[in-house]
Amino acid sequence: MVPKVVFGQGSFDQLSSILNPQRKDKAPFIFLVDDVFKENKIFVDRINLRFNDKLIFISADEEPKTSQVDQIVKEIKEEFTYKPSGIVGVGGGTILDLTKAVAIMLTNKGSASDYQGWDLVKTKAVYHVGVPTISGTGAEVSRTTVLTGPVRKLGINSDFTPFDQVILDPNLTIGVPKNQWFYTGMDCFIHCVESLNGTFLNAFSQSYGEKAYDLCMEIFLEDENLSEEESRGKLMMASWHGGMSIAYSQVGVAHAMSYGLSYVLGTKHGIGNCIVFDHLEEFYPKDVALFKKMVDKFNITIPKGLCSNLTENQINTMIDIALSLVPLWENALGDNWETIMTRDKLKQLYLKM
Amino acid sequence: MVPKVVFGQGSFDQLSSILNPQRKDKAPFIFLVDDVFKENKIFVDRINLRFNDKLIFISADEEPKTSQVDQIVKEIKEEFTYKPSGIVGVGGGTILDLTKAVAIMLTNKGSASDYQGWDLVKTKAVYHVGVPTISGTGAEVSRTTVLTGPVRKLGINSDFTPFDQVILDPNLTIGVPKNQWFYTGMDCFIHCVESLNGTFLNAFSQSYGEKAYDLCMEIFLEDENLSEEESRGKLMMASWHGGMSIAYSQVGVAHAMSYGLSYVLGTKHGIGNCIVFDHLEEFYPKDVALFKKMVDKFNITIPKGLCSNLTENQINTMIDIALSLVPLWENALGDNWETIMTRDKLKQLYLKM
Repeated sequence: MVPKVVFGQGSFDQLSSILNPQRKDKAPFIFLVDDVFKENKIFVDRINLRFNDKLIFISADEEPKTSQVDQIVKEIKEEFTYKPSGIVGVGGGTILDLTKAVAIMLTNKGSASDYQGWDLVKTKAVYHVGVPTISGTGAEVSRTTVLTGPVRKLGINSDFTPFDQVILDPNLTIGVPKNQWFYTGMDCFIHCVESLNGTFLNAFSQSYGEKAYDLCMEIFLEDENLSEEESRGKLMMASWHGGMSIAYSQVGVAHAMSYGLSYVLGTKHGIGNCIVFDHLEEFYPKDVALFKKMVDKFNITIPKGLCSNLTENQINTMIDIALSLVPLWENALGDNWETIMTRDKLKQLYLKM
Repeated sequence: MVPKVVFGQGSFDQLSSILNPQRKDKAPFIFLVDDVFKENKIFVDRINLRFNDKLIFISADEEPKTSQVDQIVKEIKEEFTYKPSGIVGVGGGTILDLTKAVAIMLTNKGSASDYQGWDLVKTKAVYHVGVPTISGTGAEVSRTTVLTGPVRKLGINSDFTPFDQVILDPNLTIGVPKNQWFYTGMDCFIHCVESLNGTFLNAFSQSYGEKAYDLCMEIFLEDENLSEEESRGKLMMASWHGGMSIAYSQVGVAHAMSYGLSYVLGTKHGIGNCIVFDHLEEFYPKDVALFKKMVDKFNITIPKGLCSNLTENQINTMIDIALSLVPLWENALGDNWETIMTRDKLKQLYLKM
């Protein structure tokens, strides 16, 4: 789990005072920042670079890749003699996952793709700090960093993955476009549905999942009197609790299928989950109905027809990727999941999307 | 925050495999264990002492004292040449608080009483593990260790106080006597009431406090169909979330007054909170009414008449101790708390108890 967290509007301004005690002589801090902030001079100034610190703007238009992690690590190693004092990620799930992976790969040999799986990382990562600027993925608190590699989309799940420090400043989520706010918020809602309806559930994950679920219901459906400020704070906490819930249980059908979609079509994670979840009445009847109400309430468009023109080859790859995520299916459908979710069944589902 | 936690029935048996990687050559693990387990051979065997590990049974009949911490530290230093690999506490809030304090005092000079307050600890504590055997105090997750010292009852609140590892095994709470189960569970309920009604509340603490409150309502009042097994798991999580809630906000009237009671009469924390809370309708009307319903439902006796025979001197000390806890009063009653909670008002309240 994340050992240190600060929360509060404006808490981002504590960043320098948090980093300073971690500074090692001549070793820079590297800031990986979502490039939506590139032109936002006031925001960039608040990051307060010192000495030989380096800021790298990164586009979150595509899901993070193992090759991208390897490239960033290579550049850092080439530019600096000293191992960085730490890596700070400022952005959404993509940037936060990249940050965690880069921190790991600065102390572990080979390619990030060598570590996709469970508990393959052997050496402690470089000190790393996460600052989410959109809420829902749970990447700020999870023990995984989900990456698309040469042969699979899978997380680096390890005890060394979680951030050493997280700064939760709800004000940083001001200005997120409505669709993106919704898709990413629904990532959290869908996490919780999958965790709470899964066979791996225990009282620990349940308590976190229930709280995140309740907060999502409040924000996206039930509370008409919530101010934007309250809504931002609550969604940031929903994301946190949702991430904690799946850290000790597992996601399910929507995430498995969404990974396939993302691998073949590059569909972003949040919207991918929404596209898939919209068709999962059979597995999560009550919650898919609630989801459709939320979509209506906020006038959100869920893209359709993505898979109608795919080649047989593409569909097969999508199915391979989805079916390879065994723990997700076991959690969702139990030990006999293979008799329920056949290749043919999965194909029929994908073709609806 | 606690960086590592395992949860689950039977998870206590993971203790050895968790400790082994932390073992330093010749440096023992010290186990501080509630002496209710002294005759329970099966349980003691599960602790699985190795090499020169040492098990110390400790009575939880009295609240933990700074002098007791100093004594345990002295004995450990006298007996072992090497600083321990770690300290493991197995018990309720008293044992867990002692464990945290001993871990701190093995690396910090002077007496534990020198560190009562906020952020006075300068050196990282010895590795320490908490294993709660009763639920409600939140001591397993909090960044404090509440101790009675020569001049005050106050916590050692610091970044080095929280456990490095916690094992949450609901089965360890089997066999807790009903009254103690209730008093300690109410410690959690009262935490939440104080945190949720406090002026220090933010969305972080609120989300944890609400979840713990909801779980307490389920366990102690609303859910007639909860199995004992479910109830144990849920109360363990209520304690966890309740502790998280106050870690980032503050407690209030009940805790301030209960500290006074405990300092003068040695009243244990859980029962002390119940004795006080029973008379706080004026401050927490809805929740004191719910509390009284819970007391009735489980046929619990709340002691009365404790303060009727106290000397003027004793009452004054009680008031001094309570009023010294400024952050608690600020949280409960706001900046003008001193005009609301006068010495006379406090005396009238104590005399009812």
